Amino acid sequence: MFDEVVRRLEIEALYTGYAGCLDADRLEEWPDFFTEDCVYRVTSAENFEAGLPLGIIYATSRGMLTDRVMSLRRANIYEPQRYRHLIANIGIERDDGTALDVSANFIVVRIMQDGAMSLFACGRYVDRIVRAGEGWKFARKDAVLDSRQIDTLLAIPI
Amino acid sequence: MFDEVVRRLEIEALYTGYAGCLDADRLEEWPDFFTEDCVYRVTSAENFEAGLPLGIIYATSRGMLTDRVMSLRRANIYEPQRYRHLIANIGIERDDGTALDVSANFIVVRIMQDGAMSLFACGRYVDRIVRAGEGWKFARKDAVLDSRQIDTLLAIPI
Amino acid sequence: MFDEVVRRLEIEALYTGYAGCLDADRLEEWPDFFTEDCVYRVTSAENFEAGLPLGIIYATSRGMLTDRVMSLRRANIYEPQRYRHLIANIGIERDDGTALDVSANFIVVRIMQDGAMSLFACGRYVDRIVRAGEGWKFARKDAVLDSRQIDTLLAIPI
Repeated sequence: MFDEVVRRLEIEALYTGYAGCLDADRLEEWPDFFTEDCVYRVTSAENFEAGLPLGIIYATSRGMLTDRVMSLRRANIYEPQRYRHLIANIGIERDDGTALDVSANFIVVRIMQDGAMSLFACGRYVDRIVRAGEGWKFARKDAVLDSRQIDTLLAIPI
Repeated sequence: MFDEVVRRLEIEALYTGYAGCLDADRLEEWPDFFTEDCVYRVTSAENFEAGLPLGIIYATSRGMLTDRVMSLRRANIYEPQRYRHLIANIGIERDDGTALDVSANFIVVRIMQDGAMSLFACGRYVDRIVRAGEGWKFARKDAVLDSRQIDTLLAIPI
Repeated sequence: MFDEVVRRLEIEALYTGYAGCLDADRLEEWPDFFTEDCVYRVTSAENFEAGLPLGIIYATSRGMLTDRVMSLRRANIYEPQRYRHLIANIGIERDDGTALDVSANFIVVRIMQDGAMSLFACGRYVDRIVRAGEGWKFARKDAVLDSRQIDTLLAIPI
C-alpha cells in the first residue's frame, strides 16, 4: 500500500515535469519523457472515439519526436508565443503488472507576444506509462483534444 | 498518519472520477457518486454567501439526480457540446469522525461542436463526503459558481 | 520516504490554503502565508528570465504585504470582482536542508460583477518555502506571469 502511495507521487511528478518542460520551451528534453519505441499522438476526441488512428501528430518512436523538435526549431523562429499547461485529475485506471494506464485532464493557455492570453487547447491525456530506472516514461501518449480546431499552423507538442 | 495519506489519495480519486464521469458524458453513472439521501446544489457565490437555499439545481436525493439525467437525455439531443473539468486545490477542512468537509476549486471549459472553446464556469465545491465501502461518496455537494450568469438553457451537472 | 510523502501533502495543503485565502478575499490573512523577512514579487516571465529585479509588486517583508492589503482595502471599494485560482503541477525542485525550492503552475480567472469571466493571469510560482511550526511558509515567492499585460489598475496579490 505504501508503494502505491509513492508510485502515485512519482506519477504526479512525471506530469509536472512534462508540463514544465513544454512550458519552459525546453523541447530538446521532451523526447526523454518517452520510451524509445513510444507511440505519441495528438488527436481529436471525435477521431479518438471513432477509433481512427490518424492524428494531428502521430509518431511511433522517440526518434520521430526528436525530428519533430528539430523541425519546430527551424520553423518556430517567428512565433514567440508561450504556453502554459495545467494538468490535473490524474487517474490510474489500470495496472497490468508491466505498465499503467493513466489519464489526466489538461488545459493549455497560449500567450502571444503582445500579452494576449487565450485558451489554446483542452482535453485528456490517455497514457500508458512504464517504469524506467528511478522514474517513469510514456510508452504511449494520446493527447485527445476536445476541440477539433487547433489554432496554429504548427503542430506543437501538447 | 499513513491512514490520512491513503484517505487523501482516495479523495483525490473521487474528484478525478467525478470529473471523468461528467466529461465523458456518462451521466447515468453520475448519481452513483452520491449517497441516497444526498443534497446536491448548483448555486452562485452570492446566494451561497447570503445563505439562500435556492439554487440553479437543487436536489435532495439520489433519485432526483437520476430524474435529472433522464430529463437531460430527452432534452439534450440538439446540444452536442463537450465539457472539460479541471478540479484542483482539494482541501480537507474538517473531519468530525463521521464525515469530511472538503472544498476544491474547479473550472469548466465548454467546447461547441464547431470547436469553439469558452470558459463555461468556475467556482468552488463545498462538499461533505462519507465513506461508502472501499470508496467515498458525496453526502452533500454545493457547486458554488463564481459567476451568477450561466450560459445555458439547461441546468447540467457541474 | 514516508516523511517525504507527508511533506508533499503538507506543501499541497499550503498552496490550497493560499488559493483559498485569495479567492475568498480574506486578504488580511494573506501575509500569514509568508515569513517575516519574506520576499514577494509579481513579475513577468520576460523580466524574470532577464534577471531583472523589478516587479509589478515587490515586497521585502511581511509588513509590506500587510501595508499592501490595507491600501487595497481603501482603494478596492469600487471593484467588486472575484478571482479564482487553480494551482496545479506543484513540483519540489530542490531541498537544501533548510528550505525547499518549489514551483507550481497557476491560472487566475476574473469574474466581474455582471458575471463575465475572463482569464486574468497565468504563469508559474517560483517559491522558496521553509518549515514554520506544524506547517510551511513562503520565504520567497515569485509569481511569474506569462503575459506582461495585466488588466487591472490595482496590483492585487496573485
